[in-house]
Amino acid sequence: MARARWEAERMTMRLLLANPNTSTSITDRIAAVARRAAAPGTDVLAVTGTTGVPYIATRAEAAIAGRTTLELLAEHGTNIDGAPIDAAIVAAFGDPGVGGARELMPFPVIGMAEAAMLTACMLGRRFAIVTFATALGPWYRECVDYNGLTNRLAAIRCLDQPFRDIASVQEEKATLLVDLCARAIAEDEADVIILGGAPLAGLAEIVRDRVAVPLVDGVAAAVKQAETLAALRPRKATAGTFRTPDPKPIIGVPDALHRLFTRT
Amino acid sequence: MARARWEAERMTMRLLLANPNTSTSITDRIAAVARRAAAPGTDVLAVTGTTGVPYIATRAEAAIAGRTTLELLAEHGTNIDGAPIDAAIVAAFGDPGVGGARELMPFPVIGMAEAAMLTACMLGRRFAIVTFATALGPWYRECVDYNGLTNRLAAIRCLDQPFRDIASVQEEKATLLVDLCARAIAEDEADVIILGGAPLAGLAEIVRDRVAVPLVDGVAAAVKQAETLAALRPRKATAGTFRTPDPKPIIGVPDALHRLFTRT
Amino acid sequence: MARARWEAERMTMRLLLANPNTSTSITDRIAAVARRAAAPGTDVLAVTGTTGVPYIATRAEAAIAGRTTLELLAEHGTNIDGAPIDAAIVAAFGDPGVGGARELMPFPVIGMAEAAMLTACMLGRRFAIVTFATALGPWYRECVDYNGLTNRLAAIRCLDQPFRDIASVQEEKATLLVDLCARAIAEDEADVIILGGAPLAGLAEIVRDRVAVPLVDGVAAAVKQAETLAALRPRKATAGTFRTPDPKPIIGVPDALHRLFTRT
Amino acid sequence: MARARWEAERMTMRLLLANPNTSTSITDRIAAVARRAAAPGTDVLAVTGTTGVPYIATRAEAAIAGRTTLELLAEHGTNIDGAPIDAAIVAAFGDPGVGGARELMPFPVIGMAEAAMLTACMLGRRFAIVTFATALGPWYRECVDYNGLTNRLAAIRCLDQPFRDIASVQEEKATLLVDLCARAIAEDEADVIILGGAPLAGLAEIVRDRVAVPLVDGVAAAVKQAETLAALRPRKATAGTFRTPDPKPIIGVPDALHRLFTRT
Amino acid sequence: MARARWEAERMTMRLLLANPNTSTSITDRIAAVARRAAAPGTDVLAVTGTTGVPYIATRAEAAIAGRTTLELLAEHGTNIDGAPIDAAIVAAFGDPGVGGARELMPFPVIGMAEAAMLTACMLGRRFAIVTFATALGPWYRECVDYNGLTNRLAAIRCLDQPFRDIASVQEEKATLLVDLCARAIAEDEADVIILGGAPLAGLAEIVRDRVAVPLVDGVAAAVKQAETLAALRPRKATAGTFRTPDPKPIIGVPDALHRLFTRT
Amino acid sequence: MARARWEAERMTMRLLLANPNTSTSITDRIAAVARRAAAPGTDVLAVTGTTGVPYIATRAEAAIAGRTTLELLAEHGTNIDGAPIDAAIVAAFGDPGVGGARELMPFPVIGMAEAAMLTACMLGRRFAIVTFATALGPWYRECVDYNGLTNRLAAIRCLDQPFRDIASVQEEKATLLVDLCARAIAEDEADVIILGGAPLAGLAEIVRDRVAVPLVDGVAAAVKQAETLAALRPRKATAGTFRTPDPKPIIGVPDALHRLFTRT
Repeated sequence: MARARWEAERMTMRLLLANPNTSTSITDRIAAVARRAAAPGTDVLAVTGTTGVPYIATRAEAAIAGRTTLELLAEHGTNIDGAPIDAAIVAAFGDPGVGGARELMPFPVIGMAEAAMLTACMLGRRFAIVTFATALGPWYRECVDYNGLTNRLAAIRCLDQPFRDIASVQEEKATLLVDLCARAIAEDEADVIILGGAPLAGLAEIVRDRVAVPLVDGVAAAVKQAETLAALRPRKATAGTFRTPDPKPIIGVPDALHRLFTRT
Repeated sequence: MARARWEAERMTMRLLLANPNTSTSITDRIAAVARRAAAPGTDVLAVTGTTGVPYIATRAEAAIAGRTTLELLAEHGTNIDGAPIDAAIVAAFGDPGVGGARELMPFPVIGMAEAAMLTACMLGRRFAIVTFATALGPWYRECVDYNGLTNRLAAIRCLDQPFRDIASVQEEKATLLVDLCARAIAEDEADVIILGGAPLAGLAEIVRDRVAVPLVDGVAAAVKQAETLAALRPRKATAGTFRTPDPKPIIGVPDALHRLFTRT
Repeated sequence: MARARWEAERMTMRLLLANPNTSTSITDRIAAVARRAAAPGTDVLAVTGTTGVPYIATRAEAAIAGRTTLELLAEHGTNIDGAPIDAAIVAAFGDPGVGGARELMPFPVIGMAEAAMLTACMLGRRFAIVTFATALGPWYRECVDYNGLTNRLAAIRCLDQPFRDIASVQEEKATLLVDLCARAIAEDEADVIILGGAPLAGLAEIVRDRVAVPLVDGVAAAVKQAETLAALRPRKATAGTFRTPDPKPIIGVPDALHRLFTRT
Repeated sequence: MARARWEAERMTMRLLLANPNTSTSITDRIAAVARRAAAPGTDVLAVTGTTGVPYIATRAEAAIAGRTTLELLAEHGTNIDGAPIDAAIVAAFGDPGVGGARELMPFPVIGMAEAAMLTACMLGRRFAIVTFATALGPWYRECVDYNGLTNRLAAIRCLDQPFRDIASVQEEKATLLVDLCARAIAEDEADVIILGGAPLAGLAEIVRDRVAVPLVDGVAAAVKQAETLAALRPRKATAGTFRTPDPKPIIGVPDALHRLFTRT
Repeated sequence: MARARWEAERMTMRLLLANPNTSTSITDRIAAVARRAAAPGTDVLAVTGTTGVPYIATRAEAAIAGRTTLELLAEHGTNIDGAPIDAAIVAAFGDPGVGGARELMPFPVIGMAEAAMLTACMLGRRFAIVTFATALGPWYRECVDYNGLTNRLAAIRCLDQPFRDIASVQEEKATLLVDLCARAIAEDEADVIILGGAPLAGLAEIVRDRVAVPLVDGVAAAVKQAETLAALRPRKATAGTFRTPDPKPIIGVPDALHRLFTRT
Repeated sequence: MARARWEAERMTMRLLLANPNTSTSITDRIAAVARRAAAPGTDVLAVTGTTGVPYIATRAEAAIAGRTTLELLAEHGTNIDGAPIDAAIVAAFGDPGVGGARELMPFPVIGMAEAAMLTACMLGRRFAIVTFATALGPWYRECVDYNGLTNRLAAIRCLDQPFRDIASVQEEKATLLVDLCARAIAEDEADVIILGGAPLAGLAEIVRDRVAVPLVDGVAAAVKQAETLAALRPRKATAGTFRTPDPKPIIGVPDALHRLFTRT
């Protein structure tokens, strides 16, 4: 029947949560948040990069992570128990490799920063990004620019103090981050605040009542947007700039990625 | 418990689909599409404007519809069986009144155009809007500008021929609209296409395989984004430019809207 | 004769000053300023909204005022002693409904904010808007964006203290507003300052010598620009996005507006 | 009395129409148009450059005209019968020298292009500039950019054929220019059209009924805007980027300009 | 002495030309062009990627190339005969990894596209990019956006026909490319044209007299700009967003890159 | 031979350094810096304006300097010992007249500000301009806008204190300027800093180690970019907006400039 229900009838939607950071403690944290955010019937498969740095914070690290993203999606995205996944999430805030992945993969791909920003746009006019380290600012700003959303950005505000451990930075800095949110509201006219960076995943739930505007959690937003894209079942482009690239020889990459490029 | 599941435990999510056009045949069409797009457990309440024109197509008609939107949301949004709704959709493509509604209402509000455009941004770099009448072009363009997404817009393409009946324009013009999509892909470098306007609701499903890039249906996108916002349970702002306005006297508006303004 | 004088030979130019606020004390104030600013031979007819709030300060209030503007112009604009008016002014600073009115009405329509901003552009490179309440900021900012003049905006500065009475806020806050102007000059590099909001009409004359850059009074600027448009006698568009809309059924609006939409 | 009428009580407003082109036939034409557009009681003094080219059409010619503008305003603006003028118009479409003149002169200065564009903004959303020679396009485009109005520009359309005589180009090319206007409406979505360049002054009156959207005549618009600025009596800035520059030695310029720079 | 000559006294300036494509025939071509463009006393060391595709043409391929760039620069840039190089060129037109390389490396790094565009800005107001395959368009457009130069871009024009061999595409398509240049001049108002993509290196010299505006060769421009940066001897930032990142553990990358990240 | 070396074989490249300021002490300073920056084999001919002000600091002064630039280039650029120069530099920071000169002259022309900004873009994401007098701010800002580089600008920071002598302002204010650079880095997120204005030429060399990001010296950057353009030997446009203007009568300008305009 032509007008089949968009929602697939099978019980399980499968989302791949690909963390191009190498830290499994971050993967564990975001996977937990992702599963709480997921609708009943959504399975979340979380995987971790095996190349690169524990936590991406610079352009150089993001350049390496771009390839890691493609590798993770190639390996885990196209062949889970023989069935393709429904959508994938690039689970690092600056969305390394998301454009390339969107070309190459047969399923929808969404970046965590992208999901957070687009979701924030529905909750107010201007959003701020609040994060835990100044090193992240420039990479995040380029990501906002890349998405063409600079005119919706109120500010990027970063804590400027060292932290003990990336795995617990959100617990350590919660109060300072809440204070930074208050400044973004008062001084930058932010209507919405994104807590940026995978290590802050889940914090929005906890400090929700201590910040006077809506908070957006990147992981939760990405899960809901991935579900949205999967449910809408957009066709894979066969024209335009995101059509699947023609087969092409490639060297020096893992097998799964090699097969995607060469279509073999 | 602080870390309660974002998804409310009750079975039913309630979405209000407010059509500020006065045509009930359009309401019926979009309600059917909305219900197909909705997740299991989502109820859609569809209501129709009683002021204004059958189908909004100009800035003047949108100016009238802005108030109609507020009236519909005030009447139907805050008091269904004593329980508030979870989110509302402004179901006219240019989103009349959406900013004001977002300020005034205690629940998330999303416009159909806004939802379509933000969803399209996750499916490609540049989107085109394809619609059935040239009169719609300028209003849609202002809507893209208002959302700050002009740099993501490939083109707005409008059929320039009269149609017999707004209620069946999508059936009448399906082939011409598919042709227009093909031109948007070839000549405007569109990666994604939004079929714009409530009368085209549901068409994306039908012509999905005849267009070479992903199609976005405004109603379906709005339903999924409304579900997203409802699931994320953002707090109502108490600061920033979308906080609830202070109580204020108002005259000449229906009771429900009067109560919202005056907080009585 | 083809080259008739642009200036009509009849003695009186008729301007409609339509205040979509419901406060007649504001209408009285702006009417007085408008008459002082008007050229000899210009008559100003001032009318007040009968729907909405005493003083518009939010997006929601502006959404209601958009329709009020159309109603006022329909009722008072097309039929004064049988002769049409020469131009109309939307006398609320954010220009609610001005785009729709420009489509629908057979005479030129200008918004107070628009007139102030375009006039300011001729007096310097960047203008600031200074006003008396923080609530006005976001609405004004959207208005600047809508006009595409964000790159000419130095800043919007708002007093952040409560005031006793909207009717006398300019007397109460004159000194604080002058101080705010000084900050806009020193810190925001403003070359020109617009005193924003109908309640500040006339203040520019009084504090002229206490501010180091040119001040623009929205009402005075709107009157001169309305005279300019009336004198230039632009034709009503029969093509383009501001041509008169085709006749269309409409329900639930006052008779005069009904006749404009239906062309009956 | 503090609240003196903005309109000066004296009968005559004096406008200086400074043509930095060296062609007196152009000066004659624009002076005639200016006087028809002027309000009763406005005197127009038209002067012609004695340095430069007959008709400015390139960046290089505009660079020379920038100084010519300052010289004309210095000589004729500050000392007519001992009384200063009320406002000056830079009567070449790209507004050479207008920024410098606005700093240096004690009276308001307005450019013809600037006046035309700002006036056009009140008559529609997007304006086109239609002119008679392709050479003018790039200079005009830079002028639009300089004014920050690129987002309001629909297109610049130029005839691409030689003409016999700059003094009669408007008569020779009237029909072709009307055709070009029609294309700007149909293909570029122009709501308003500016007939650009001093040699086209007056043509808007003549072809008014042959073009389907409002036409803006640069000279007429500049006269009305100059009257507007003069009537509003803005103070000369003593701060900000358009304050009068500090006295400074200068060599190689005519006496009147020398006195303005050196304040002697 | 503090005011030492910027030009180093030693005879040889060493430039690293890093080709992140895996095709050595392209490396040979660009190396030859680079050596012709180089000043006397400049040595060019050309290296080829060992990971990725023969010729990068999509976002996915660029994502992989970003890491390849870092690897090439780490291996060949910091340790040639014990002496560091003076500057490096990323020799693929979309500049994969250039931002990260600029952070990480102790010497100046310049991208071929970036060098071409900035050089073109000195030769005219708007540049076009002309290239040999439509697949390259979207990646190039993102590169222009990333550099913030969209307002200087006249158009990107791509041949839409298949070619026999990437190594000789410039010979095969020379005439068609010259025709495309002519269209970019006539229809897009390009003042300057960049021949985009490493496979077109050297073509600008050959067709110089057949195109009516200046042509920019990406390789030649990059060599001259690399020489410029090397001659100016800018210090390596110790603050700001391009300071050397703090040492950080990293896994899965080659030794030279590992040492750069870990500072060991 | 078609593939002749870009670098001319003759030993000497001739650059004209045209200072449109009338102060020869500034010319001496920038000539010294230019000669230190020049490659072996580059001759720098420095000339000084004989019309205008000692040091250009306002829009009005720049308007006069635009013509001075053309005069200097016409007189000294086209006829040195019978041979044309290879490139010219407009040696005032706001680049007065550079667009016109680029049209009119047969050789490449580059402005000092333009060269500094484009060079800075290769050293980081956002540049600040630091200069010695607040009067320069607005003129510089318009220059950044004109070049379309506003999105790469971090800030313009100006000392706000009087100085004793323009000829020694850099020695007098060196420490304060270094402090201002530090603020631009810390508060404006500048990655690179341009020391703006001819009187600061050479200062970058001296304070290089006291500022934590790369410094760009406008004169040195302009020399290297002029050498780049000369080495690339771009053809003079015969189409596009920078083609040589058609011959045209002109009056009131010096002989050399007269000949350029009239092609006699």
